[in-house]
Amino acid sequence: MNTYLDYKEHCKKIYDIYMSASVLNWDQETHMPKNGNKFRAQQLSTLAKIAYELSTDIKFGKLLEKLNSDDSLNFDQKRNIELSYNDFKKKLKYSTKFVERQSLLTSRAFQDWRIAKENNDFNIFKNSLSDLIDLRKEECELIGYKNHPYDVLLDKYEPKLMTSEVDIIFNDVKDKLVPFIDKISKNNIIDDKFFYQFFDKKKQWDFGIELLKQMGYDFDSGRQDISAHPFSTHFSPQDCRVTTRIDENNLSDMIWSCIHEGGHALYEQGLLKENYGLPLGDSISLGIHESQSRLWENHVGRSIHYWKKNYGLLKSYFPEKLKNVDYKQFYNACNNVKSSLIRTNADELTYHLHVMIRYEIEKAIIEESLNVDDLPSTWNRLYKEYLNIDVPSDSQGVLQDIHWSHGSFGYFPTYTLGSFYAAQFFDKASKDITDIDSKIENGETKTLLDWLRKNIHKNGKRYDASELCKKVTGETLNFKYFMDYAKNKYTKIYDL
Amino acid sequence: MNTYLDYKEHCKKIYDIYMSASVLNWDQETHMPKNGNKFRAQQLSTLAKIAYELSTDIKFGKLLEKLNSDDSLNFDQKRNIELSYNDFKKKLKYSTKFVERQSLLTSRAFQDWRIAKENNDFNIFKNSLSDLIDLRKEECELIGYKNHPYDVLLDKYEPKLMTSEVDIIFNDVKDKLVPFIDKISKNNIIDDKFFYQFFDKKKQWDFGIELLKQMGYDFDSGRQDISAHPFSTHFSPQDCRVTTRIDENNLSDMIWSCIHEGGHALYEQGLLKENYGLPLGDSISLGIHESQSRLWENHVGRSIHYWKKNYGLLKSYFPEKLKNVDYKQFYNACNNVKSSLIRTNADELTYHLHVMIRYEIEKAIIEESLNVDDLPSTWNRLYKEYLNIDVPSDSQGVLQDIHWSHGSFGYFPTYTLGSFYAAQFFDKASKDITDIDSKIENGETKTLLDWLRKNIHKNGKRYDASELCKKVTGETLNFKYFMDYAKNKYTKIYDL
Repeated sequence: MNTYLDYKEHCKKIYDIYMSASVLNWDQETHMPKNGNKFRAQQLSTLAKIAYELSTDIKFGKLLEKLNSDDSLNFDQKRNIELSYNDFKKKLKYSTKFVERQSLLTSRAFQDWRIAKENNDFNIFKNSLSDLIDLRKEECELIGYKNHPYDVLLDKYEPKLMTSEVDIIFNDVKDKLVPFIDKISKNNIIDDKFFYQFFDKKKQWDFGIELLKQMGYDFDSGRQDISAHPFSTHFSPQDCRVTTRIDENNLSDMIWSCIHEGGHALYEQGLLKENYGLPLGDSISLGIHESQSRLWENHVGRSIHYWKKNYGLLKSYFPEKLKNVDYKQFYNACNNVKSSLIRTNADELTYHLHVMIRYEIEKAIIEESLNVDDLPSTWNRLYKEYLNIDVPSDSQGVLQDIHWSHGSFGYFPTYTLGSFYAAQFFDKASKDITDIDSKIENGETKTLLDWLRKNIHKNGKRYDASELCKKVTGETLNFKYFMDYAKNKYTKIYDL
Repeated sequence: MNTYLDYKEHCKKIYDIYMSASVLNWDQETHMPKNGNKFRAQQLSTLAKIAYELSTDIKFGKLLEKLNSDDSLNFDQKRNIELSYNDFKKKLKYSTKFVERQSLLTSRAFQDWRIAKENNDFNIFKNSLSDLIDLRKEECELIGYKNHPYDVLLDKYEPKLMTSEVDIIFNDVKDKLVPFIDKISKNNIIDDKFFYQFFDKKKQWDFGIELLKQMGYDFDSGRQDISAHPFSTHFSPQDCRVTTRIDENNLSDMIWSCIHEGGHALYEQGLLKENYGLPLGDSISLGIHESQSRLWENHVGRSIHYWKKNYGLLKSYFPEKLKNVDYKQFYNACNNVKSSLIRTNADELTYHLHVMIRYEIEKAIIEESLNVDDLPSTWNRLYKEYLNIDVPSDSQGVLQDIHWSHGSFGYFPTYTLGSFYAAQFFDKASKDITDIDSKIENGETKTLLDWLRKNIHKNGKRYDASELCKKVTGETLNFKYFMDYAKNKYTKIYDL
């Protein structure tokens, strides 16, 4: 290994293994028969181990070191090398044993979580979860930190983000968003009962597919399946898949999860295929990823413009069920701000209280001020405190999310970050694109997609999240954009 | 690497990669969006390369050499080592470059074949096919042979089988089976037109699933999907999948492909999971594999006993379509011996003429007496000669099978071999199992499955195909069993 080309080849090889593992993961969550789990876990562990060994190959490290001081490289090449070299040095702090253990553990934990959730029995998941938490604590010490061990976990999903910054974000949420939510809740007269009729699965599915197509999601480079928890994944920019779940007694569940995952997939489909395997062919961070899904889900998919035509389309699928619901009622209903039990079904404002609860729990776990046995009761207490909700069962409480079963701690805050980025990006897009509202009304979202492609997607990791935000919007992340958006929209809806 | 345990661990690691590649292959043929192919091909090539490198690791070779003369090992352990060592020495003759090229080529060829078949245009597939043939010829020289280069290709699927032996088999077919088929065809008055009505896809699917369940196929360790060409695959004994295709204008297509692939999957589900990754956890050969699918498809699934109850079940799915067809008519129709165009739909007698045509073509290609340009015309000429059929299009002719697109040459003869093994095994099973006919009539095939599990499946590669055949039936493969079965059955059906 001696040249930039060798570097690229080695990166591609590593990425091929990660992408293969993604196929196995996708299959595990969508199609795999239940007995398949044991050997699947072993296979994923082997792939993780091989990828890790290749990523920490000492010859690769030497090449990176050499290329890192090679002035003949252009800007993009230098950026790739810089990020790969940082990644290499970070990975060296782990060990093959750690990676193997992590892979086996997450496969086991995912299966345990699934059964625990089905059976509403936290105890089935408890041991796996406890082992995963131990692994994460160990990881914090392995990697090292200046201020807070949780910084290590945040950094995995949102490079450079600090716990202290997340604290500031949630202080904004508490200081500004919570009072506004309170004001709404005193005025809340929206009737959304019609969402909770029986809506045929197949028809919901077909409607979801239509929405995805309209967004510009390319079905020749992707597909949709059903899974317990909606997600998007990718095996290359030419194979970016989404999943959804359909609740026949709740129409809203499918619609916005579909648009949300579609937004993620559009980001992946917009990465440049010539950069496959390289940092510049990869998404920046989960926060930026979430900004894409949230932008489509909320700023487009919950806007009055979006439903002008699409509500007619929806009515053509369910003429009987929706015959007494007009367009305005529908728009209000899909923006019903109301405390609820399930994060993924929450409105775009109370959503951040769900995230805050998870953030506080994770921080307390890592700080060792909370132990696993007390997780369900703490969960329930915080839901009462922040959302005034009584949690009726662990399935709908502490077991509702897949993330911990994947060993993902430090992940949730990126959801809130993503929403705030989304508001800031959409504000800029609205200024850049002439007549964006009427374009959305006419289902012409291609201009918006092109704007996102050009300004965000095609860059891959060319810039850090903060840098990108500044480049695109003129300033770094600013909570004001989200708050302004919320006030402007909901003041009208609730006639505040 | 120093102990038998190290050997096992290394084998499992290699097998994990092969099984991961199988998941990627399964996905490619069932679910992958069309643009996914380019990177999928690259990912499969990377996995193949890594598996090859691990398989030919010099330290692994040294360990095998050492263990191969370790007298403290038991019979099974010795057998594992013997086979692994042979495999190691054989693999050393290849190169990483060869393996990589092969993987990329087969992925490309599969895609070309699919498009060529869809568009009925052999030219789209021609270049890929030609490259694959060159690769196979190169392989014959790399591996070396005593008598015929085609021996090298046969050995990949049916260890130790010689071209000269296949010639003898097809001489039997020509001398004994062909005259018997001629006799039938002069007497053929079977009416099977009812098969070619419209049969709803969903109902066919559901009926197929019922048949699979009845056979003892474990859906907790498998699943069925739709693909262009039915196949079975496995990722472990606990995840063995089948695919089918459904022609709404031909009921018979789905039924027997379903039973056939189910038979393959039962073999894989019957391998011992503690032997995962080792030769004793692997099937013996394609011939023995095919004996399992053919035994279920023909000796069970086309027997008069099998349909005694199941025809009632089928009628409950399609009462209108089948109202004028009685059980006896149905049995006769599914044993209609008649020249046809498509191998996979052929009756169990003329089937071997389809195989013979492919065998002759492959041999001629490897002997270089036939070139790719002349493949379609040769195909059509031989179908006229052996089956008296005019081939209306290449899609239904030379492009009908997936095998060449996978680079599989030397594979087809194992189909015929498998049928003949099936007859011999079933003859023995019928002697061992009391009242096998009435058991099959009552849908009680568990006794038969147990017999197969005990005598065949659970052994894995403990014995060679010939050895196993002798152990189970008292003699090596003997064409007489198939011929006797055919004569006995069809003399009655056709009142010869």
